[in-house]
Amino acid sequence: MTAAELGFVALTPTAFLRRSAVVFADRTAVVDGDRRWTYRQLLDRSARLAGGLRRLDVGPGDRVAVLAPNSAMVVEAHHGVPFAGAVLVALNTRLTAGELGYILGHAEAVVLLVDRSLVDLGRAAVAASGRTIEVIVADDDGYEALLADAPPLVEPVDDERSLLALNYTSGTTGKPKGVRYHHRGAYLQSLAMAFHSGLGPESTFLWTLPMFHCNGWCFTWAVTAAGGVHRCLRAIDPGEVWRAIHDEGVTHFDAAPTVLTMLVADPAAAPAPAPVTVAAGGAPPSPTLLDRMAALNLRVTHLYGLTETFGPSVICEQQPAWRGLPAAEQAQRQARQGVPNVLGGGLRVLDDDGVDVPADGATLGQIALRGNNVMAGYHLDPEATAAVNRDGWFLTGDLGVLNTDGYVELKDRAKDIVISGGENVSTVEVEQALCAHPAVSEAAVVGAPDELWGEVPVAFVTLRPGADVTAEELRAHVRTRLAGFKVPKAVRFGELPKTSTGKIQKYLLRAGLTSERGEPT
Amino acid sequence: MTAAELGFVALTPTAFLRRSAVVFADRTAVVDGDRRWTYRQLLDRSARLAGGLRRLDVGPGDRVAVLAPNSAMVVEAHHGVPFAGAVLVALNTRLTAGELGYILGHAEAVVLLVDRSLVDLGRAAVAASGRTIEVIVADDDGYEALLADAPPLVEPVDDERSLLALNYTSGTTGKPKGVRYHHRGAYLQSLAMAFHSGLGPESTFLWTLPMFHCNGWCFTWAVTAAGGVHRCLRAIDPGEVWRAIHDEGVTHFDAAPTVLTMLVADPAAAPAPAPVTVAAGGAPPSPTLLDRMAALNLRVTHLYGLTETFGPSVICEQQPAWRGLPAAEQAQRQARQGVPNVLGGGLRVLDDDGVDVPADGATLGQIALRGNNVMAGYHLDPEATAAVNRDGWFLTGDLGVLNTDGYVELKDRAKDIVISGGENVSTVEVEQALCAHPAVSEAAVVGAPDELWGEVPVAFVTLRPGADVTAEELRAHVRTRLAGFKVPKAVRFGELPKTSTGKIQKYLLRAGLTSERGEPT
Repeated sequence: MTAAELGFVALTPTAFLRRSAVVFADRTAVVDGDRRWTYRQLLDRSARLAGGLRRLDVGPGDRVAVLAPNSAMVVEAHHGVPFAGAVLVALNTRLTAGELGYILGHAEAVVLLVDRSLVDLGRAAVAASGRTIEVIVADDDGYEALLADAPPLVEPVDDERSLLALNYTSGTTGKPKGVRYHHRGAYLQSLAMAFHSGLGPESTFLWTLPMFHCNGWCFTWAVTAAGGVHRCLRAIDPGEVWRAIHDEGVTHFDAAPTVLTMLVADPAAAPAPAPVTVAAGGAPPSPTLLDRMAALNLRVTHLYGLTETFGPSVICEQQPAWRGLPAAEQAQRQARQGVPNVLGGGLRVLDDDGVDVPADGATLGQIALRGNNVMAGYHLDPEATAAVNRDGWFLTGDLGVLNTDGYVELKDRAKDIVISGGENVSTVEVEQALCAHPAVSEAAVVGAPDELWGEVPVAFVTLRPGADVTAEELRAHVRTRLAGFKVPKAVRFGELPKTSTGKIQKYLLRAGLTSERGEPT
Repeated sequence: MTAAELGFVALTPTAFLRRSAVVFADRTAVVDGDRRWTYRQLLDRSARLAGGLRRLDVGPGDRVAVLAPNSAMVVEAHHGVPFAGAVLVALNTRLTAGELGYILGHAEAVVLLVDRSLVDLGRAAVAASGRTIEVIVADDDGYEALLADAPPLVEPVDDERSLLALNYTSGTTGKPKGVRYHHRGAYLQSLAMAFHSGLGPESTFLWTLPMFHCNGWCFTWAVTAAGGVHRCLRAIDPGEVWRAIHDEGVTHFDAAPTVLTMLVADPAAAPAPAPVTVAAGGAPPSPTLLDRMAALNLRVTHLYGLTETFGPSVICEQQPAWRGLPAAEQAQRQARQGVPNVLGGGLRVLDDDGVDVPADGATLGQIALRGNNVMAGYHLDPEATAAVNRDGWFLTGDLGVLNTDGYVELKDRAKDIVISGGENVSTVEVEQALCAHPAVSEAAVVGAPDELWGEVPVAFVTLRPGADVTAEELRAHVRTRLAGFKVPKAVRFGELPKTSTGKIQKYLLRAGLTSERGEPT
């Protein structure tokens, strides 16, 4: 197809901003503290960001990273970086300089846009990357100066399957993997999110979800498509969330159950003046939480997805018939992961031979997903890509059952991942950090249930003969290498249970924790 | 791309039914009189329709026509015909056998699915086509027998730009043109319609709009995508519409202002128990109509599009700021055609040299549209396709102005078309029918304003020397050849005003009508 033929335009999520800058030109697009941009301004600033990047010699396909809390600059980067033909790498602000440096290096970033609050971390990350990276700080002399006199630039997208963004995930190998997002997938996923959430020009979307998680599950573009307001929130402050709900007409937000739990427990919690649409992802919301949310006029839909699926590719679509059920049964149904979203490329649960398990709500298998909202692959890692690709189906590494009504329910993870407060923790990565300590012989990390965080990492460690170290010393050691949420909340010493072939039996470690009612010491 | 790669599935609107048959398996999909299908049944019946068609030797790319009022069979055909890899040709039930025969012949239809109420018309159309066409009547011995023991068939779609449907439009050349709909365009337009209309699993969509108009503006697939109810309506009966609104929980319907005018004037009109979302297309709703609709709890959005754009590609997106305006100003804004829908491939207003006119609300130009919801071209008519394609922009033939706020407003039609009750009438076609009468020397047809129908065709005729014929005789003559809505409501005799080069000055004829306050005799 060429642009000169009728009926074909390459799909790209940045097209939504070009439309909204006309249709909703004078409506508020972004609120970030005292700053407010209209859609016309957002397009103008994003296009000038693209022009400024081009002046820095950023060309098509080059990688531009952003390290910032939810803020106007990140919304602009989601549009302006692709406008330059470049690829966005949105960095998790909770990582250490070493972790970020690895990502900057792997992505071969040429520019880093960094918030003022994170300049030290950003510079240390650049140093750790060993690369020459232009650092642009979000202040008058940096980011604003870059935009100030730059000519607007909007590069056309010729190939909708070309690279739009790299999103790094904690893999099971211990090193983050760069998930390749294509323009087509992000466009479609944005439309699906706008549709399922009922976003519209009267919506105000509160950014409780980090924009660096799967590009904010593509809501960075979905809210723009709908012409709604991006209400930035730089950090989760429950009082601030409630104030925004009551005083600023917030209609939508997305969050992990950990955040929702904080919200309902906050002293400022009071029923919202109008129903608020809340998407919960990262872990199933508990029946208690769903009850409390409902009483606060927060209408929760449970979503499930992975970085590899542009965020939520599965949605617990609520059936009108459920309303007739007792509350506990309703909650049980709502806590399931659900069905493919409207893009619906397919969901299967496969046994070890790749055969579909029966939809009996009991037979465990691996969840596989297919569709346009699946990544094109892992960046510079064809082997890892091949390992998760079964004839076009993406193997999620998550284990679940398929219910008779077609809803999938997660039961366990085949991947060695702990999900703590919505953040993925690679247990292998933590184990490697522990083993780097001279006193440690071997280590195993598992997730322990936690009321607030969902799960927390807990370490089991065998010391070298004669060595001596305290749990606190080991935790401090890990903290120098990894982000805080990855540091084991508890460390236990002793021999590790193993199979006859020497494989550590993590299920025994987990079972021990559960039998202690989830309170590791 | 191949199916074995990650992150790519060919877009097709039939995928929505495959999803909804799982997600909304036991929910009502279609209500047609006493018949009700769940989504599971709709998929099953559609797949068996595909299997039955295959038994009739219908192969990929073959054309299958359907001639029926809004009914379950038409919904099934929108899914089952593509499931067989075949191409749907939904016929306008208001056409004559001769008109339909031309379309069946041009489309090279191999099968005609026909409603029982239209069997005679269908058979006459097949005879007029001169083709051998298998006629399947929607009764127990025909359509139901075809489905009864057929194996389900769902052919995969490999090329999303391949042909999904042919929709015939009244062109300016006097012969209908077959507009080529591709799977990709229909998929995206369906998503856009579902998004803008706020369709969801709790929606009940009343089929006031004919399903044969642009495949029901793609709502045949959009309602399916949302898991809503297709409530069929075989004919516009205002009392029945009001009964459905009050007793069956109708949440949405689409219609031309002509139909809306009938509805608000009906004795059964009473405010809907809950707000009903109404999309109005075909002509701008008047301020009076908008006022009356609002009082009846019907929330109207004005849409604009053409057969060539999968129905509404332009939407009068309502701005929250308008609510502060006086009612008359609100209505004036709502009556404009608007802005591109969320697919937004672009809208321009071009002068004769192809240069954009200023957005001043005054300078007239031709409206051009671009995007994935533009046809791939006219079937078997590369010349007509080339004539409307300017570097990938579709020239609509409609003249309008661009307002300062980016909203387009139709002022006139470059094409010689009269729109009467939402149906397009090619004036050339009517003129040719008139000239086929032995008494007629030449004829010109223009649209006269009409309170109910928006416009009606009116003929100006010059007789051959010595010939004699009455207006009623000429109307009867046209009625034997063309659909009733194309028959001139009035015929005037005399010389036609012409330019020095002999071109008929239709604007003078129109001006004469308008100065008589739109009441042709």
